Amino acid sequence: MLEDWLAPKAAALESRGLTRRLRARAADEDLIDLAGNDYLGLARDPRVIEAAAEAVRVWGTGSTASRLVTGTTELHEQLESALAAYVGQESGLVFSSGYLANLGVVTALGGPGTLLISDEHIHASLVDACRLSRSRVEIFPHNDVDTVEKLLAERNEPHAVVMTESVFSVLSDEAPLTALAATAAAHDAVLLVDEAHGLGVTGNGHGSVHALGLAGLDHVIVTMTLSKAMASQGGVVLGPQVLRNHLINRSRPFIYDTGLNPPACAAALAALQILQAEPDRPMRIHTATNRLAEATGVPPAAGPVVSIPMPGPHEAVAAADLCLENGVRVGSFRPPSTPDGLSRLRLTAHAGLSATDLERAGAVIVDAIGQVS
Amino acid sequence: MLEDWLAPKAAALESRGLTRRLRARAADEDLIDLAGNDYLGLARDPRVIEAAAEAVRVWGTGSTASRLVTGTTELHEQLESALAAYVGQESGLVFSSGYLANLGVVTALGGPGTLLISDEHIHASLVDACRLSRSRVEIFPHNDVDTVEKLLAERNEPHAVVMTESVFSVLSDEAPLTALAATAAAHDAVLLVDEAHGLGVTGNGHGSVHALGLAGLDHVIVTMTLSKAMASQGGVVLGPQVLRNHLINRSRPFIYDTGLNPPACAAALAALQILQAEPDRPMRIHTATNRLAEATGVPPAAGPVVSIPMPGPHEAVAAADLCLENGVRVGSFRPPSTPDGLSRLRLTAHAGLSATDLERAGAVIVDAIGQVS
Repeated sequence: MLEDWLAPKAAALESRGLTRRLRARAADEDLIDLAGNDYLGLARDPRVIEAAAEAVRVWGTGSTASRLVTGTTELHEQLESALAAYVGQESGLVFSSGYLANLGVVTALGGPGTLLISDEHIHASLVDACRLSRSRVEIFPHNDVDTVEKLLAERNEPHAVVMTESVFSVLSDEAPLTALAATAAAHDAVLLVDEAHGLGVTGNGHGSVHALGLAGLDHVIVTMTLSKAMASQGGVVLGPQVLRNHLINRSRPFIYDTGLNPPACAAALAALQILQAEPDRPMRIHTATNRLAEATGVPPAAGPVVSIPMPGPHEAVAAADLCLENGVRVGSFRPPSTPDGLSRLRLTAHAGLSATDLERAGAVIVDAIGQVS
Repeated sequence: MLEDWLAPKAAALESRGLTRRLRARAADEDLIDLAGNDYLGLARDPRVIEAAAEAVRVWGTGSTASRLVTGTTELHEQLESALAAYVGQESGLVFSSGYLANLGVVTALGGPGTLLISDEHIHASLVDACRLSRSRVEIFPHNDVDTVEKLLAERNEPHAVVMTESVFSVLSDEAPLTALAATAAAHDAVLLVDEAHGLGVTGNGHGSVHALGLAGLDHVIVTMTLSKAMASQGGVVLGPQVLRNHLINRSRPFIYDTGLNPPACAAALAALQILQAEPDRPMRIHTATNRLAEATGVPPAAGPVVSIPMPGPHEAVAAADLCLENGVRVGSFRPPSTPDGLSRLRLTAHAGLSATDLERAGAVIVDAIGQVS
């Protein structure tokens, strides 16, 4: 049954060179990693490790239920308060993944009375959130504030939410947040900003919304993942307390999901404390990004990602394989994971990379691209 | 903006007695817990704790990226193989939450060519999965196989997926899995069974699909959460290898989400190993369930949940509060979390509860219900 149904689909993907396969990594790899999203280099920091290990001893390995039942520990509330304070928001609510945080906030605000207006390059979780919301959804061309203004002005719905990211995942470019926030305010709309790639990276770590003075405004909502710079897992929605209360009561992916596990809460909290104690870490990400961009001849990026266009999916995969053989792991992005249908190498910069690492990585990548192109 | 929008909704909920609030628990509570879903009593087992602590040391605190990039460790594959073997399936694929596992498998199989047929009592994550799938969706009356047969026979779509749970969350009753599997097979359809409350509980722990001889059939898919009996976090989809490959390539909540964190993988694996080494644990759940049902005068349950109808939401909350004051934590289910609009006390039985605990809990609950009714 499933064989007859799915095997032909697999063959069709294979013939286009688009089959994805999982490759398990070992614990003791001797690689320069430019593929993971551990931007601050904290996922193996002894202090973060010890905090997570201590949390399983104190709190157990699971949160044991929905946040509304027994799944909220004091650790969850500490993390929420600390994150909110760090990014300048009144409150935060932690979900078990960034994907669910985005689904959770958009569906809780969506519905027939709410127009959702989404940047065309937005993350898959926000696209799915729109689909799930039962709202009318309009997509605007990447970073096009004029279209946003027009859509807001022409709407019939009483409510509207404009959705973007502070730093985009694949191209690592920035959204015009100040203009979008002003436009939203002028039309009595909410601006939702996904700072998955902003937290720990932009605005000296506090994110772009904070850096631009937009944090704490009554019409600005921020979502973040804890699985990138925070070296952990989970997601968070940040904004006014009235929003947090609304999500607790109305957000199905919050209510009907098990709370984030204690070691993930503790790891994120420890990572945040290190970020506060060592405020130069975000700058080290940008230094690394600039060196990688320079070495590979692409423009400098606003965020933590250096994105290198490749001729096609086969070349992207072949170049990534060559890099791996030479001790450097890079990501390859192929359709449908790229906003423009272009295949790419995707390099993420980490605060923990040494100058030697970066020099060696740059040389290996340039060589690999040369061999496959 | 958000205040004007959301505060009136909060007031409306409050006036109906339906406001939900989070209550953080402390690490050192001296309570009998009948509210969490740690069915096998393993979330604080020293062996599970040590496995999780060791995993953060060896693998770090986060998986660092999507499963397709650097988010698959050898630990993920060990867990997937061990779970598949235990429940008699060819393969398994781990997601970062059970919610996302359900969204991930249904949306990857859904679409215009697939009819989704769903039991009316199915979990919120499967309801959301249907909405997100772009499929035609039909709901059948709880456990009504005849309606399923009719819907399958009359369909125009080439594909169909029948969705149910092996043990339902609120009423703890069972689905007629054998009849549903036969009906699905007769109509070239897939049966998807959510065993969130079956794993570790029914079929001597292996789940209901295994117990009924349905595991490994080419048209039967099982989903499970790792956040209940497995004392951890995450979810898993189990079935033929061709399904696993399809999800890796097509399931957006798998592709665009960060992989499950290493301590959660290790905790679930350790819990599974304990379950295999101590096969009497599931029976201890049933013993506890039976004692609680007897004490409170409700019929015995098939699953790990004892469900006690209450006159209304106020009474359910008041009774749960009284129990807590007397050292027993129970859950209260209010609309919209109950399938029939009835408010309830929800007691979960754990393998770790002693006879004394159960006797004391029963007395406290009966007394609390008497006081509020």
